Amino acid sequence: MNEWKNYPKERLCLLKDECRRKYDEFKALGIKLDMSRGKPSPDVLDLSNALLEAPASYICEDGTDARNYGTPTGIPECRRLFGELLGIAPEQIIVGNNASLQLMHDILGRLYFFGTLGERPWKDLERVRFLCPSPGYDRHFAVSEDFGAEMITVPMTENGPDMDIVERLVSEDESVKGIWCVPLYSNPQGIVYSDETVERLAAMKTKAKDFRIFWDNAYGVHHIYEEHSIANILDAARRNGNEDRIYYFFSTSKITFPGGGIGMVASSPTNITEQQARINIQTIGYDKLAQLRAVQFLKSPSNIRAHMRKIGDMLRPKFDIVTDTLERELGGTGLVSWMRPKGGYFVAVDTLEGCAKAVVAMAKEAGTVLTGAGATFPYGKDPRDTNIRIAPTFPSTEDLQKAMDLFCLCVKMVSIDKFLSEQEDAE
Amino acid sequence: MNEWKNYPKERLCLLKDECRRKYDEFKALGIKLDMSRGKPSPDVLDLSNALLEAPASYICEDGTDARNYGTPTGIPECRRLFGELLGIAPEQIIVGNNASLQLMHDILGRLYFFGTLGERPWKDLERVRFLCPSPGYDRHFAVSEDFGAEMITVPMTENGPDMDIVERLVSEDESVKGIWCVPLYSNPQGIVYSDETVERLAAMKTKAKDFRIFWDNAYGVHHIYEEHSIANILDAARRNGNEDRIYYFFSTSKITFPGGGIGMVASSPTNITEQQARINIQTIGYDKLAQLRAVQFLKSPSNIRAHMRKIGDMLRPKFDIVTDTLERELGGTGLVSWMRPKGGYFVAVDTLEGCAKAVVAMAKEAGTVLTGAGATFPYGKDPRDTNIRIAPTFPSTEDLQKAMDLFCLCVKMVSIDKFLSEQEDAE
Repeated sequence: MNEWKNYPKERLCLLKDECRRKYDEFKALGIKLDMSRGKPSPDVLDLSNALLEAPASYICEDGTDARNYGTPTGIPECRRLFGELLGIAPEQIIVGNNASLQLMHDILGRLYFFGTLGERPWKDLERVRFLCPSPGYDRHFAVSEDFGAEMITVPMTENGPDMDIVERLVSEDESVKGIWCVPLYSNPQGIVYSDETVERLAAMKTKAKDFRIFWDNAYGVHHIYEEHSIANILDAARRNGNEDRIYYFFSTSKITFPGGGIGMVASSPTNITEQQARINIQTIGYDKLAQLRAVQFLKSPSNIRAHMRKIGDMLRPKFDIVTDTLERELGGTGLVSWMRPKGGYFVAVDTLEGCAKAVVAMAKEAGTVLTGAGATFPYGKDPRDTNIRIAPTFPSTEDLQKAMDLFCLCVKMVSIDKFLSEQEDAE
Repeated sequence: MNEWKNYPKERLCLLKDECRRKYDEFKALGIKLDMSRGKPSPDVLDLSNALLEAPASYICEDGTDARNYGTPTGIPECRRLFGELLGIAPEQIIVGNNASLQLMHDILGRLYFFGTLGERPWKDLERVRFLCPSPGYDRHFAVSEDFGAEMITVPMTENGPDMDIVERLVSEDESVKGIWCVPLYSNPQGIVYSDETVERLAAMKTKAKDFRIFWDNAYGVHHIYEEHSIANILDAARRNGNEDRIYYFFSTSKITFPGGGIGMVASSPTNITEQQARINIQTIGYDKLAQLRAVQFLKSPSNIRAHMRKIGDMLRPKFDIVTDTLERELGGTGLVSWMRPKGGYFVAVDTLEGCAKAVVAMAKEAGTVLTGAGATFPYGKDPRDTNIRIAPTFPSTEDLQKAMDLFCLCVKMVSIDKFLSEQEDAE
C-alpha cells in the first residue's frame, strides 16, 4: 500500500513543503475563478444564439396570438415537443416560465398550504419529513427547508438512492411526505438511477397517501460519454396504481439559456388539473413568446439530441481534465475517492473525513471559489465533511486545468495536516 | 322626468317588442364576440413588434451575460428604467417575469406562510380580512380568496376607495391585514385616486402592524384622454413612517405584450431584502433576456410615454363608441348610470338593481360574451347585481359598435321586464 496515510512524518513534511511552495506560486498569480455553480460557458451558450432571433411567427398552431393573453397551460406545440422528447402525454404537461425550480417550489408550497386531493395541508401537520438522497442538489434542500420540512439524508448508491432505506422510511412513517430525485446524471455524482430503482420508487408502499416524488430530470438529455437513459417513472407509477405520486420536472435551462429558458412539470391528469386551477389564480399565463421561440429553435426531439451532442463534445474535454488530473495527482494516494460521472454537470469528490471545508477554504484563499463544502447535504451540513462538488462547465480548459492543479494541491496539504495532527495525537 | 320607470305598461310593452325584434335580428347575424377580458387588439400589439427582434447585445450594462444565470433582482438597466418612469429608487425594485399578478400572489403567499418582519404568519391567525374596494379587479379578489382571506367590500368614490370607511376598519380591527388598490384608472371604473386618498392610505393608523397595501399600478401610463398622475405612495408612506406598508406593482403587459412582458414590485428596502431572500429560494432568477429586450425596446420614460400616446390614440375611439352609444341609447332613460373613465382599460356600467346578470346572459345568448356580472365584487357576488364591466380594447370599432348596440338593447329589455314585473306586483 502506497497510501499517504502510511507515510512517515518526515516524508509528509517534505511533501507539504513542496505543495506549499507550489500553492504560494499559484496564489501569486492572482487568478480569480468562480467554479461554485453549474453554469454553461459562453461558447456553449453561443450554440443557441438563434434563440435570440424573432420567431418566424407569433401565431401558435392553435391560432393563439402568443403576444396576447391566453393558453395558461403552455402552447400546444411546446407541450407536444416535451412530450415526444420525454415520452409523456402532452395533456399531462404544463409549460411554465424559465427555472423549473419555481415550479417545484410552488407545487411544494401548495402541498403545504392547500394539501392535495383532499388530504390535510402539510402546514397543519405536526411534522413533515422529506427524504434527501445525498450528496444532492442544494437548491432542492433549500426549498424543503424553507417550508419547514425535516430533511432526512438517504445515502446514494451507484444505482440511485439506497432503496432499502427509502422503502423502510416511507412504509413506516406517515410524516415522510416526499423525496427529491435527480434521476439521470444526479447532481453532483452523475449517477444514473437503475430501472430497478425507478420501479421500486414507483411501486413502493408509502404510509402517507400524499407521498410525492419530486423527479427533477434536469439533465435528461445531458450526455457526456455514452448516452444513458432512465425508465419512465410516470408509466411505472401508473402501472402500479400510484400515478398521483410523481411530479416530473424538466427545463431547457441547460439546453439553451439559463437566463431565458423554459421549464415544465408533468404529472397525472388529476394532479395537473389540480395544479392548473391553482396556477390560474397565481398568474394570467406564462411567457408564450419564450415557449414559441424554444419550439422554433429546438424543433424536434432528434434536433435536441443533436444539439446536446454538440454540447457534450464541448464538455467532455472538461470532464476529462477533472478526472485525469484527479487520477494523475491523487490516484493511489488514498486521499480522495470519486466516481467518474456518467453525464450531467458535475464531478463529486470525497476527501478524507473532516477535510472538505478546509480544502474549499484553501482553494478560495488562492482565488478559486468552489461550491461550499456541505452544500450537497441537507442544512448545508455534510456529517463527515468529505464531499466537494466540482463544476467544470464554465471555465475555459486552461483555467480548469489550473483550478484542478490547485485543487489537488489543497487536498494534499489539508490531508497531510490531518495525518500530522493524528500522528501527534498518537504520540 | 322622461325616465322609463314612469312609462305606462303599454308603452313599455311596445318598446320591448321593438327591442326584441332588433335583438332577434342581431342573433340571426350569428356574430361571435368575446369582450370578457381586457385584452389588447392585434393592431396595438403590432406597435411593439420590434420587441420580438434579437436584442442588440446580450451583455447587460454590469457585464452580466443575460443568457446565463445570475442577477436574480433584475438587470440594473431595467430596474433603473422602471425607477425613472415611476419615481422609485432602482434598489427598491425587483424585476420579475411576465404577469405582475404572480408577484402579488407570491408576496401574499409569503405573508400567509412566513409572516413578515417578525410578525406571526397569517396562516396561524384565526382570521385575516382584506379590504376590496369594489367594483374592482376579479383576479385580485381571487388571490385573497384562495389564501382564505375574508374579503370586505369597500365602496369606491370618484377619488378612490371611501377613505372614511377604510380608516375606520383598519384602525378598529387587527385582523384587517391589507387592501387591494388600482390607483390610476381603476379597474373597472377608470377612477384616479386623489392625492388626499393616497396620503390618507399612506398615513392612516392601522391596528395590524403588518397591514399591507397591494398597490397595483397596472395602468400607470395608460392614458386615454388627459394624462392623469397619482401621488407617489412610497414617498408618502416613508414620510409618514410607514414605508414597509406598501407593495407597489407595475408591468409591461399592457404596454408591450401580455404574453411576453415583464412585471416588477417595489417596496421599502427592508421588504425588498426580505422578499429577495425568499425569491432566491423560489427561483434561480427571472428571464433576463425578456428584461433586456424590454429595456432595448422601451428605451426611456419619454419613449414609453410616446408609445403610450400611440396606444391611447388607438383606444380613444373605442372608448368613445362605448360612452357615446350609452349616451345616445340610454341617456336620460334612468336605466343605467356610468362614469366616463379617465383612462385605463374598461368602462363600468351600473344597471338597475337586479339586472346585471340578466343583461350579460342576454348578450351572451346573442353571441357577445361580457365579463361575468358580479366578477367585479369579492366572491363574484355583486350584492345589488348592477355592475357590468365593458372591455372595449380588443374588438374592432365595427364589432364594438355592434356589441354596444346589442348591449343597450339587452339593458332595455331586461329593465322593461323588471318594470313590468314590478307593476304586476303592485297591481
